[in-house]
Amino acid sequence: MLPWEGDLAGRLDRHTVDSELLRGNPLGDPHERPLWVYVPPGYDDGDERYPAVYVIQGYTGHVAMWANRTPFRQTFLETADAVFAGGTPGCVVVYVDAWTAYGGSQFVDSPGTGRYHSYLCDEIVPWVDARYRTLPVPESRAIAGKSSGGFGAMITPMLRPDLFGALATHAGDSLYELSYVQDFGKAARALRAYDQDILKWWADFRARPAFTKPEDATLLQLLGVSACFSAREDGTPELPCDPRTGAVRPEVWARWLAWDPVRMVPDHAAAIRALRAVWIDAGTSDEYYLDLGAEAFRAAIAEAGLPDDRVRFELFDAGHAAIDYRYPLSLAWLAERLAR
Amino acid sequence: MLPWEGDLAGRLDRHTVDSELLRGNPLGDPHERPLWVYVPPGYDDGDERYPAVYVIQGYTGHVAMWANRTPFRQTFLETADAVFAGGTPGCVVVYVDAWTAYGGSQFVDSPGTGRYHSYLCDEIVPWVDARYRTLPVPESRAIAGKSSGGFGAMITPMLRPDLFGALATHAGDSLYELSYVQDFGKAARALRAYDQDILKWWADFRARPAFTKPEDATLLQLLGVSACFSAREDGTPELPCDPRTGAVRPEVWARWLAWDPVRMVPDHAAAIRALRAVWIDAGTSDEYYLDLGAEAFRAAIAEAGLPDDRVRFELFDAGHAAIDYRYPLSLAWLAERLAR
Amino acid sequence: MLPWEGDLAGRLDRHTVDSELLRGNPLGDPHERPLWVYVPPGYDDGDERYPAVYVIQGYTGHVAMWANRTPFRQTFLETADAVFAGGTPGCVVVYVDAWTAYGGSQFVDSPGTGRYHSYLCDEIVPWVDARYRTLPVPESRAIAGKSSGGFGAMITPMLRPDLFGALATHAGDSLYELSYVQDFGKAARALRAYDQDILKWWADFRARPAFTKPEDATLLQLLGVSACFSAREDGTPELPCDPRTGAVRPEVWARWLAWDPVRMVPDHAAAIRALRAVWIDAGTSDEYYLDLGAEAFRAAIAEAGLPDDRVRFELFDAGHAAIDYRYPLSLAWLAERLAR
Amino acid sequence: MLPWEGDLAGRLDRHTVDSELLRGNPLGDPHERPLWVYVPPGYDDGDERYPAVYVIQGYTGHVAMWANRTPFRQTFLETADAVFAGGTPGCVVVYVDAWTAYGGSQFVDSPGTGRYHSYLCDEIVPWVDARYRTLPVPESRAIAGKSSGGFGAMITPMLRPDLFGALATHAGDSLYELSYVQDFGKAARALRAYDQDILKWWADFRARPAFTKPEDATLLQLLGVSACFSAREDGTPELPCDPRTGAVRPEVWARWLAWDPVRMVPDHAAAIRALRAVWIDAGTSDEYYLDLGAEAFRAAIAEAGLPDDRVRFELFDAGHAAIDYRYPLSLAWLAERLAR
Repeated sequence: MLPWEGDLAGRLDRHTVDSELLRGNPLGDPHERPLWVYVPPGYDDGDERYPAVYVIQGYTGHVAMWANRTPFRQTFLETADAVFAGGTPGCVVVYVDAWTAYGGSQFVDSPGTGRYHSYLCDEIVPWVDARYRTLPVPESRAIAGKSSGGFGAMITPMLRPDLFGALATHAGDSLYELSYVQDFGKAARALRAYDQDILKWWADFRARPAFTKPEDATLLQLLGVSACFSAREDGTPELPCDPRTGAVRPEVWARWLAWDPVRMVPDHAAAIRALRAVWIDAGTSDEYYLDLGAEAFRAAIAEAGLPDDRVRFELFDAGHAAIDYRYPLSLAWLAERLAR
Repeated sequence: MLPWEGDLAGRLDRHTVDSELLRGNPLGDPHERPLWVYVPPGYDDGDERYPAVYVIQGYTGHVAMWANRTPFRQTFLETADAVFAGGTPGCVVVYVDAWTAYGGSQFVDSPGTGRYHSYLCDEIVPWVDARYRTLPVPESRAIAGKSSGGFGAMITPMLRPDLFGALATHAGDSLYELSYVQDFGKAARALRAYDQDILKWWADFRARPAFTKPEDATLLQLLGVSACFSAREDGTPELPCDPRTGAVRPEVWARWLAWDPVRMVPDHAAAIRALRAVWIDAGTSDEYYLDLGAEAFRAAIAEAGLPDDRVRFELFDAGHAAIDYRYPLSLAWLAERLAR
Repeated sequence: MLPWEGDLAGRLDRHTVDSELLRGNPLGDPHERPLWVYVPPGYDDGDERYPAVYVIQGYTGHVAMWANRTPFRQTFLETADAVFAGGTPGCVVVYVDAWTAYGGSQFVDSPGTGRYHSYLCDEIVPWVDARYRTLPVPESRAIAGKSSGGFGAMITPMLRPDLFGALATHAGDSLYELSYVQDFGKAARALRAYDQDILKWWADFRARPAFTKPEDATLLQLLGVSACFSAREDGTPELPCDPRTGAVRPEVWARWLAWDPVRMVPDHAAAIRALRAVWIDAGTSDEYYLDLGAEAFRAAIAEAGLPDDRVRFELFDAGHAAIDYRYPLSLAWLAERLAR
Repeated sequence: MLPWEGDLAGRLDRHTVDSELLRGNPLGDPHERPLWVYVPPGYDDGDERYPAVYVIQGYTGHVAMWANRTPFRQTFLETADAVFAGGTPGCVVVYVDAWTAYGGSQFVDSPGTGRYHSYLCDEIVPWVDARYRTLPVPESRAIAGKSSGGFGAMITPMLRPDLFGALATHAGDSLYELSYVQDFGKAARALRAYDQDILKWWADFRARPAFTKPEDATLLQLLGVSACFSAREDGTPELPCDPRTGAVRPEVWARWLAWDPVRMVPDHAAAIRALRAVWIDAGTSDEYYLDLGAEAFRAAIAEAGLPDDRVRFELFDAGHAAIDYRYPLSLAWLAERLAR
């Protein structure tokens, strides 16, 4: 229960990567990005190669937040280290940053934000493999995250089965009718104070301390995810709902649904069947109903043909927040299953 | 502020109607139905004919509840009477019962509940016109209600412009993606305790005091509205969502959306344009986002060509409950606009 | 599950009592009061004498509300009747009205409201005994109620053991630090809109539809209970808290605490020990923590020497509202235990 | 809006202090403590002496949390630096750690936790004055904090006017009937799962991930503040409420009230009158009603004779959380008013 940082059994390297793909991104976000790479105890004493687990974050997360301390808990940097210090077979753990000025990228390529999917797959993965003794094959490479990070962990192996062969999703975004539509009504109401114009809210949000108005989180996510999923070619985010009534706009909403992991599975069934290990969990009172999204994703991958013995599914008593204590559980589980 | 019943200026007749159309209804509900008819002060002193306002209730309402007393408020029976006692031109007010064993009928014909739309239009209207000095033309006949009753008030004139030429909807069901979808997630979670089988919940609900479990209201409405909107020919309600995940079932959901007043308007544009007076209101924090439904319905009827000067639109500071003080406002407004 | 009123097995008489004690009450409330008296099946067929159960209501209740119908439930008038129709030994049930312009009287004598305790004990009880074949002794007379009615049911037998020898309290007001103090903060905040003057709110409340502002319920109860517990001799209610800060005013608060049933017990230990039957229940998530008040009252009466076998204590899964289905349970239990 | 750490205009030194007073503290907490000291831009270029502002934290806070990053906001380390970089006269800012195994010390001396008040006043202040070019007089020394830190900021200058002559309290603990009593009911309910024994909960809490049960925060604070305010001589915390009913225990509660800043003011009126600058603020929807505590504290210090022109009082639209953007406002205000 000591709150003060102790030494790690392994080693955490804090790098900065100069990205070609993020250079000139539409939001003017930095193309120099932090990348933290952890090597387990024993790494420096031998020449063994290790599986790698890529860890991505939820919406509004950026890499430096992994060092945030909360009372009576340790950081994931520490609890992840403790997994390997405790005897679980070692992995390289890669903490990737995909933050944007809107708070996130959803780990996709979009004219509204930038090429974050490509950045992760085509820049970071080779960068890590070139500098660390990883096993550079999909059966030894996993991706894990929570919330939007869980979403990224679900979709990236579908899109790039050549790279990722395992995943862990904690309360990952899915089943969008339940997780997103409820916010359309909240957003439309909130926009009454901004002439029903989300860009007026955005201008206001940027000009004052963030998150001092109750609508900030809802509107930020609505605008930001629109930038990821439904930007025009010129980068302008198109909302999936009418900003006055909250009514679904079918054409734009269809673009969002095309990114619903549950709905993506049938088109990527072969990639799904090739997965070596899939961890799915969520809290039973998740405010975005991501426990139900988890159920639906589990059902979809079973339908696609993934055998049950490669899946770990668990619902637990919690909401959406403060579930970081789940991450070392999935990390240890993946570490046992990745090929080495 | 006296809570005890006083005399009415007009007169309330409490009838029982023996319905042919409800005889043998699928739920075994009574075909003898209460019908309360109010005549304004002066009715018995002359031979004038009056416009009529049909008043219908929200989900789980039945006619006897109009007599319920709440602290520091009068019943609508009394506040409606006060409208006419105060000098507003008199109307006959007809209190219709459309309750079912599931709590309501949505005022539609359905193999899951019975022929309540026909009952209202083809039995009650002629019954009243035969026994009271009404002006039996649509420009002198209005329909009004709250919540599900507001829904009935929106759809009935679209379906029967030969009967109804004016309406008032208070927080009427509409824009179903906002008002209903949020409950799918709640329902799926609640059904975990019932093997994901809503009929197990229904059996439990009927065997104990009603509304003693937090899920009761959500599940009752989901089951009951399914009986109204998406029953099979044999009467079995089909849910618009997967009972395990809450995921929308597109085919069933399409049947619900076909009953969304906002979506019905374009197909009934001529009936809408013929309306003489339309009152639309809702509370700005309505738990079902029916303020946004109200906005969307207003936009739809404007788009259909109804002139603004026939519409009264108002949002006020309230939730969904306890807005009965709004009803006399719309009644007085309609009374001034109905043809006489 | 039929929502429409059926016939009673017993008989309900609806009287009006002309009270001497309430004449000229400080709030100008009626001194003619409704009094409903129920006699069980068989009453009219013999000359048997019956125990009597006096039933009192929660804050803002008045007698006519007993006839209110709620969906899928029967009124207590009906469920009480069903108790006796089902074979439980018969009782006379007396429905007493103690409403005031502030919403209630707490069943005490106060210069702020009137002599409602005396009205109940010295007018209604003799009135009933004179007109009905009751057993006019305390061991055959009980009092029961919910919320403020539960409070009245706890205190009246302590004050008048010569009249009442049994009681049932459902979520009765008690342990005031938990049930009332939380409202002081809410009240002080709400009063910011009224220059911190509760009488400005009161004037506003009376001039518009009641309960259309979120603070109405809290402020009404604060003002009204002050009129009952801490009025000056001239009738002016004194608040137990500073209207600007919500800080407890110790002298006034002491007057309230003198009416806390938990704190009253030690001074009335002999009366408590003489009780024949005490039913105590509450919901485990009661918004006023009256489940804890129930625990504390139970502990206090045990400490005072009342044997456990005369007490029925139960907590159940519910909040403060909609627990009327509990009333017939205590009625049946009392009916079995009253002397006859 | 860049979330990544930039350089400070001033300099932050991260020290470890070896405390004599905390050695052997009853909870076995470390006696080596972090102490962060910030010097403003220009400090290293001259020999000027500076006022000092001591910054303390809310319950469960420890110094390393000052470095936590939240989305779209900067850390106080950075916003405090920006105050001085922007031209406000420079101050030394001292970040003090007073964490304990229960989550906090309330900055008092207690046999239940340790001598944290003395540690702050008699060890840290001299330590800083010995190593930094401060102005070592009360009119040049302030203390500031939020929540429990605001409490510490209110009481420390009352107890040690020889050291502190100014303060800033953001949502500081005060008016305990509103801030604490509401938790007694929550605690008693939560303890039903632990045989009404808070030490059973404590054992459970320490044996699993913290804050995974909804009662954790309430019970931690109740136990921890009891350790600070109402420990026995042997260190055992005594609860201010009955753990079964939540009823106030008057003797223990009196020990808590003796630490209520509002109630402490009259006994320390001379110290209050000597204060040079007092900043008081809180959010109008603070979950602990600390906006009302702020009002009451303001009223108390005015009553004690502190002139209004030395006070800055402000309520703003917020709850208790996420109000760190207020801290640089008070820091700048104090910096202008401290003697130099």
